[in-house]
Amino acid sequence: MENLSVGQYNLIYNAFSFSFATLAAATIFFWLGRSQVAPQYKIAMTITGLVTFIAAYHYFRIGESWANAFDVTGGTIETTGYAFNQAYRYVDWLLTVPLLLVELILVMGLSRSETISRATRLGLLAALMIALGYPGEVATTNGARWFWGVASMIPFLWIVYELFVGLSESIDSQPEDVRGLVSTARYLVIFSWAFYPIVYFAGAIGLDGGTATVVIEVGYTIADLTAKAVFGVLIFMIALRKSAPYFEGQKSLAQPAQ
Amino acid sequence: MENLSVGQYNLIYNAFSFSFATLAAATIFFWLGRSQVAPQYKIAMTITGLVTFIAAYHYFRIGESWANAFDVTGGTIETTGYAFNQAYRYVDWLLTVPLLLVELILVMGLSRSETISRATRLGLLAALMIALGYPGEVATTNGARWFWGVASMIPFLWIVYELFVGLSESIDSQPEDVRGLVSTARYLVIFSWAFYPIVYFAGAIGLDGGTATVVIEVGYTIADLTAKAVFGVLIFMIALRKSAPYFEGQKSLAQPAQ
Repeated sequence: MENLSVGQYNLIYNAFSFSFATLAAATIFFWLGRSQVAPQYKIAMTITGLVTFIAAYHYFRIGESWANAFDVTGGTIETTGYAFNQAYRYVDWLLTVPLLLVELILVMGLSRSETISRATRLGLLAALMIALGYPGEVATTNGARWFWGVASMIPFLWIVYELFVGLSESIDSQPEDVRGLVSTARYLVIFSWAFYPIVYFAGAIGLDGGTATVVIEVGYTIADLTAKAVFGVLIFMIALRKSAPYFEGQKSLAQPAQ
Repeated sequence: MENLSVGQYNLIYNAFSFSFATLAAATIFFWLGRSQVAPQYKIAMTITGLVTFIAAYHYFRIGESWANAFDVTGGTIETTGYAFNQAYRYVDWLLTVPLLLVELILVMGLSRSETISRATRLGLLAALMIALGYPGEVATTNGARWFWGVASMIPFLWIVYELFVGLSESIDSQPEDVRGLVSTARYLVIFSWAFYPIVYFAGAIGLDGGTATVVIEVGYTIADLTAKAVFGVLIFMIALRKSAPYFEGQKSLAQPAQ
């Protein structure tokens, strides 16, 4: 981080601020949306908003940590000696990544036993994936970075298997006008996640200096916004469409018999 | 910014504070208004409030950045060496300008496919317009400022075409008592936006010093308040009028058969 230019510092600072604003706005969007979905999808909307809420908090903190790590005065930049706390990301993921898989399972409206077993399995695998990645992120040797990185790929691949093989039968049983959206949500998870190992191994292959820092920080930010806010909009659209019959039913109940 | 007087510094600081208060108040007004519109217009009201919420956040931040950039003590003003972060504006616009076009499309209550295609197209064009303007805003040469400014006019003109030609048929199909309001909302977007290039090119034509800073900062602030808060009030009025038949229908349903 020693070779960062003022422009690179600002770009990363603004990416953090942008991310905070987007995630805070998304949180309110999802929670206000709760009133527009049928009762069985309200928990999914609550959790969708929790994911962006937790992430907004961490982006606020990470932005402060970033600003404290550097002194930018009169057009020059120097490190202050305070470390930039990268661990905020892992703390965030440990909470949000299991929750966002749970939110996908909840919006599918499966049976109670299938919901519990799938949500538990996916949630634990996701937490394990994050926990195994962290020692590598803070490792001082490339060997350790590779070891933990590869270790965390095992639960990752298991999650991919669960989403694409385990869930496919349940997706086929979804109403026709949401089947495409559920499948897209699944792909969005995998594609946005694919970015994390790329950024992670950017450190291991020796990419360094200011450019590497920009790639890592802005890259993680874009991946987070996609996996949380954009993914949440898909969950909301699925919940809205699946709620239509419920509200139709309510309207006809309110109508007096002819 | 070196030739700013204490009076000019205060004027700009107070404009930022005024803007934060107005946008925060507008946000609450729009979100409370959600309960007064029919279900199909609730998302439009949610997003109207999101636009002012995101803008309020950025005006709070920009006000703090402004205060940190200057030291005003004993009636004299000096720069502190900390840069005033003008990028907050672009970060804000990148989020809010696409959203406010989406809010106009949503309140029109078009078919699902037309809503998605129009909102996507207008949203992407708006984001492109902002993204192309930014390199010019931070450019050090007038040539670059003109180049990016003109480049960002291309999506701008496309948006104007979409609003005035593409949408005209849909506007004709609106209920008679809101047709005028929808058309006014469209003009308000264009006229408030017309102010941004004027301010933008104020830098390129060599206007400089304290007066230029006042024109730019207060100018952008007035344009933002018009395009977000005043525009939002129009959206709310449209949603309210279009909701009247829904609430009439509910009343007659609640009435016992004669």
